[in-house]
Amino acid sequence: MKGEQYLLLPGPTPVPDRVARAMNRAMINHRGPEFQEILVSVTEGVKKVYGTESKLLIYPSSGTGAMEAAVVNFLSPGDNVLAVSIGVFGDRFAQIAEEFGAQVEKMDFPWGEAADPEKIKERLEQDKNHKIKAVLLTHNETSTGVSNDVKAIKEAAGDHPALFIVDAVSGLSVVELKMDEWGIDVVVSGSQKAFMMPPGLSFLGFNNKAMTAYENNSNCKFYWDIGVGLEYLEKGQNPFTPAISLYYGLEEALKMMFEEGLEEILQRHNNYRRMVRAAIREMGLKTLAADGCASPALTSVIAPEGIGANKIRKMMQEEFDIVLAGGQKTLDDVIFRLGHLGYVRQLDLISVLAGLETVLFKAGYHIELGSGVKKAQEFLIDMHE
Amino acid sequence: MKGEQYLLLPGPTPVPDRVARAMNRAMINHRGPEFQEILVSVTEGVKKVYGTESKLLIYPSSGTGAMEAAVVNFLSPGDNVLAVSIGVFGDRFAQIAEEFGAQVEKMDFPWGEAADPEKIKERLEQDKNHKIKAVLLTHNETSTGVSNDVKAIKEAAGDHPALFIVDAVSGLSVVELKMDEWGIDVVVSGSQKAFMMPPGLSFLGFNNKAMTAYENNSNCKFYWDIGVGLEYLEKGQNPFTPAISLYYGLEEALKMMFEEGLEEILQRHNNYRRMVRAAIREMGLKTLAADGCASPALTSVIAPEGIGANKIRKMMQEEFDIVLAGGQKTLDDVIFRLGHLGYVRQLDLISVLAGLETVLFKAGYHIELGSGVKKAQEFLIDMHE
Repeated sequence: MKGEQYLLLPGPTPVPDRVARAMNRAMINHRGPEFQEILVSVTEGVKKVYGTESKLLIYPSSGTGAMEAAVVNFLSPGDNVLAVSIGVFGDRFAQIAEEFGAQVEKMDFPWGEAADPEKIKERLEQDKNHKIKAVLLTHNETSTGVSNDVKAIKEAAGDHPALFIVDAVSGLSVVELKMDEWGIDVVVSGSQKAFMMPPGLSFLGFNNKAMTAYENNSNCKFYWDIGVGLEYLEKGQNPFTPAISLYYGLEEALKMMFEEGLEEILQRHNNYRRMVRAAIREMGLKTLAADGCASPALTSVIAPEGIGANKIRKMMQEEFDIVLAGGQKTLDDVIFRLGHLGYVRQLDLISVLAGLETVLFKAGYHIELGSGVKKAQEFLIDMHE
Repeated sequence: MKGEQYLLLPGPTPVPDRVARAMNRAMINHRGPEFQEILVSVTEGVKKVYGTESKLLIYPSSGTGAMEAAVVNFLSPGDNVLAVSIGVFGDRFAQIAEEFGAQVEKMDFPWGEAADPEKIKERLEQDKNHKIKAVLLTHNETSTGVSNDVKAIKEAAGDHPALFIVDAVSGLSVVELKMDEWGIDVVVSGSQKAFMMPPGLSFLGFNNKAMTAYENNSNCKFYWDIGVGLEYLEKGQNPFTPAISLYYGLEEALKMMFEEGLEEILQRHNNYRRMVRAAIREMGLKTLAADGCASPALTSVIAPEGIGANKIRKMMQEEFDIVLAGGQKTLDDVIFRLGHLGYVRQLDLISVLAGLETVLFKAGYHIELGSGVKKAQEFLIDMHE
């Protein structure tokens, strides 16, 4: 029998039935009062998740679109930018900034590690004339399964006036992020991760300091122009036709998130991280990221020697319809990535761990069936107490 | 009782149940074989609708996004561009080109009229040194309800080497457009019009001549970069996460379109145009566009003196839950726009016409109830014969 797929990617993530049903509604006028009500309500909702009372715009685009929006609105050609990268998505942010004319200085950390706040502090302290206009930072790097300590990095930056621009596409509502409290100037996110939604909407939050940068900005922009976006938001509209069905879904997803509680959602993801890591280790496997920086959104597992990661992924899909992500670039066939963010239930993870044990056993790996599952069950008991 | 709304906008248009149900499916891996199959199939489907065997990319964005994509990929800063405008969307295309550094020469025609091929011919003939690198043209202008004769304009341009870039967001599959046969180089379209889909996907078709312009292009671009898009399409993927649920919908919508037949869809919209215009005139009202250039996608109706267009729209919504569009800019309160594109059935239009007669009567306008409806019914008999 072929049943429903287990989608354990670091995005897109499973969509709950409530959200799917909510999207299944007739179209309405995107310039009428019903849409206005939805737009105002979801914008407020996403702002709560951001922890901000600053401005926020929603784009009909993927997360990368909002990354581009952050660059073309807040960086001008020639601006010096410090791009901190711990993987593929950090590299992408740097690449976008370069494409639009910024003078990008890359600060790379080894894949599988988090950015070191001390090194960022040192670099910014050297910049006595404040040439660096912006710091680009990844909140949660899905290519490696590592989270940056955004709070510590921001604190380490002290009173350096550079704009802090954070790509929180996969991390928001999974790893803590308090935009206003921590003084983050620009935060980018998207719908297909912890928001439990299909892909297609992206979010851009920005404070007054960022607005000042926008007012002096010399980059070309039209679709991403926040000035036009804010002007229409005042009227309860988007400048260009919004993806209406996804707004219906977002409205329902936010309801579910507030029912669960934002603190509880962070806790749940953190529990998943600990549970999956403990089970993986019990199976004798290694994780790419160290405990201190491992992401609550996904776990990168190093495949056992002699069995490639892609073979495991292939067997998981063929035997159990479980979809895992592979490694990117140099990590291809070295790791597989098990996403546990968004609408993933505890027992979904038990199923996946059981499937993984079975597949490893079949592939000739020496494992005691049930050992990892048992470890995970022990966590379930803790989590329920 | 409050039932389903009659959505008679020139977009977003009603979504058929089959399409809504198709979208209501679980997420899948956007880098896996199932999505690849969908992507290949819908890309081929949209190309059929375009009448092209050239390249076509699908973006997660609104139609304006694909307009920006056309500009940043095929126009370079400093390029001389002839922007033909017959309304709001023609102005928008010119504005995007200007924003990204093109030397834009506007050729404006009065609102409510189509572009005159002769004038375009004259202008291009004057351009003996071929300074004009591109002509921007609107296929169907929804702000006024006028269609341009793209074929005649292209023919009038003779062998001038300028790229022909056509905004067919609202016109594709409503008004004839044969990209390859007519030699159009770039065609932009979107999901929320004749494609009977929610907003959120846009289409960009381009031929080899456009590819040459792309290869020499100096505009900054990342999200819209067709080079990256084509590279990923080869692998059956999108560079950035696609709006998966909308792809499900597009797959089903294309099925419905091919079941009906592309010629039949054009004929149906043309019948709607004739039927609605005849009925409107029978009510003693005037249309903004002349018969020769009136759009099969929507009809712009001039409100009777003493009763503003917005009052009529308000009454239509309050009494019958019929949503009509208003006039934009100088046409505000002067016209209302009745959309009849996409998933609109014959008897939906009869209902709307009956509602309109009732509202006009109530507003004190002298009208014989049923007169417009009868005229429309006569067309139904013709259409069925």
